[in-house]
Amino acid sequence: MKKKVTLTGITTTGTPHLGNYVGAIRPAVEASRQENNRSFYFLADYHALVKNQNPERFRQSTREVAAAWLALGLDTDQSIFYRQTDIPEIMELTWILMCMTAKGLMNRAHAYKALVAENEKKRAGDPDKGISMGLFCYPVLMAADILMFKANEVPVGKDQVQHLEMARDIAGRFNHVFGNTFVLPEAVTDTKTAVLKGLDGLKMSKSYDNTIPLFVPEKKLRKLIMKIKTNSQGPEEPKNPKTCTLFETYQAFATKEEVLAMKDRYAAGIAWGKMKQILFEYLNDHLAEPRRHYQSLIENPEYIEKVLKEGAEKARAHSVPFLAEIRKKIGVQAIGG
Amino acid sequence: MKKKVTLTGITTTGTPHLGNYVGAIRPAVEASRQENNRSFYFLADYHALVKNQNPERFRQSTREVAAAWLALGLDTDQSIFYRQTDIPEIMELTWILMCMTAKGLMNRAHAYKALVAENEKKRAGDPDKGISMGLFCYPVLMAADILMFKANEVPVGKDQVQHLEMARDIAGRFNHVFGNTFVLPEAVTDTKTAVLKGLDGLKMSKSYDNTIPLFVPEKKLRKLIMKIKTNSQGPEEPKNPKTCTLFETYQAFATKEEVLAMKDRYAAGIAWGKMKQILFEYLNDHLAEPRRHYQSLIENPEYIEKVLKEGAEKARAHSVPFLAEIRKKIGVQAIGG
Repeated sequence: MKKKVTLTGITTTGTPHLGNYVGAIRPAVEASRQENNRSFYFLADYHALVKNQNPERFRQSTREVAAAWLALGLDTDQSIFYRQTDIPEIMELTWILMCMTAKGLMNRAHAYKALVAENEKKRAGDPDKGISMGLFCYPVLMAADILMFKANEVPVGKDQVQHLEMARDIAGRFNHVFGNTFVLPEAVTDTKTAVLKGLDGLKMSKSYDNTIPLFVPEKKLRKLIMKIKTNSQGPEEPKNPKTCTLFETYQAFATKEEVLAMKDRYAAGIAWGKMKQILFEYLNDHLAEPRRHYQSLIENPEYIEKVLKEGAEKARAHSVPFLAEIRKKIGVQAIGG
Repeated sequence: MKKKVTLTGITTTGTPHLGNYVGAIRPAVEASRQENNRSFYFLADYHALVKNQNPERFRQSTREVAAAWLALGLDTDQSIFYRQTDIPEIMELTWILMCMTAKGLMNRAHAYKALVAENEKKRAGDPDKGISMGLFCYPVLMAADILMFKANEVPVGKDQVQHLEMARDIAGRFNHVFGNTFVLPEAVTDTKTAVLKGLDGLKMSKSYDNTIPLFVPEKKLRKLIMKIKTNSQGPEEPKNPKTCTLFETYQAFATKEEVLAMKDRYAAGIAWGKMKQILFEYLNDHLAEPRRHYQSLIENPEYIEKVLKEGAEKARAHSVPFLAEIRKKIGVQAIGG
């Protein structure tokens, strides 16, 4: 039986936070250890170029995000971990797919339409104001990322489901014109994964500036946890764990037994200060080892580079022959060959 | 003094005709022999993919167009003659430039706007009906073609002047953000080159189906020339060379002295049948050698391939290090490097 192929794109903007870890990194790392899958993980740095046009920040983001995934235990023996910019075949496939993509399809992309709507609300004059071709064409590059490795499943957030449908559309069009070539990928949206709340009780997100970064020093971690918003219930009042950011965060890391025990303590009226201290200690224990690992990786960038280069080699063992096959199908081949 | 760099894109759709030769190929071939230029000529096959999605026709067009240019004397020692699909760096640069290109710029492309206007006229519902992303993004690929080789001058028809302005725009934006990198290219529109009329007296063009293909067999060439439309003046009536397709075609090939002599014969009332015979013989003499050369090339596709591969090597001696430089500027580089 053929192994199922899964592919995960990793945005390289900024250092990951606790919400990224629980919602995306942890399940992906777990999947990377499963033997019945063939998993691809890639740093989507050519996607990042759409928004990040500061070379120093660009480099730093790639380095930090790669180090974070390795520190958190991504299995780079079982899985293939690479950097998009190391796979030139993806860029060539992007152009080929451009020729198979109706412009109308891109016009209907949610992310693009949201920006147009914003411009219209602001009466910007040009509805495309501030929108680059990189942003507009983003779903085609994403289709190339996915189709190149014949991914069956792509774990994505709900906002990315439409992009997966587009990739299927584009693949279907190519297959129709040039014969069966691409696998039609499916979006996998895991409804079980936790969505963490941030310091202010809203969804933890860089854009809300309410995150707890994964690898801050112990002191800083403590300070951040102490800042998490709670209600005004006093010590000894019984508390409801269901509406509590502290509890939810604890639950995302603790064992079942520990969670049950903590529920009892909530019912018994644990004080917020006490709970914050417990959460800090628990997280700090949990993150101490990855934090050390992360620090040592950041100090050994050559090692990260080596791992990514090895991953690129493994990825190109697929992409080079597959692009040759695709080129042949469209008629790009040696004259007289 | 640095040599001036010129770059010429060659569309690979269909076999070239007399009008292509006089208007584009002949001046380009002459330029390829000038020692004060550094000339790049490339088969724009990834552009062709936008419209030509028939693999067999795709292959055939590339073969025939390459053979035609070689048969007509392109100097591949002095100049660099290559196939776009052999230079993957162009495809990667295309994405990089996408990120530097405002979508609004593409919205204003004449070729795109003409198609939208047609859809609107037809009340097609969707103004983007039948328009692919390949077509919409075409000017960005063209910018990559040009900027990759630091071309100073690009000989183009009037319909392409806007695309050159776009390439300058995109280059300027990149230079502004990442520091001086690209040469701003200039369009060169040669007003001296002849525009030939077709069999029906309209501009010779594949879309009017009025062409004289360059390498048809002698018999077919004769037949086509006999079909060229003339007025109804009888033999011995003095004729006006200025409004005559036969004369114009003769003039595009003959020497000054021959043209003057022919003017006298027009004044003396040469019969159309006679003139057609003269034109046929003249063209047939002129084309006999290239036609033989073309036939022998078509029968030796491996030779064409060899020439193109050598050209690609010369072109990549530029594009590989230049892309490395561009990647470094945007922040794509080895971690810890």
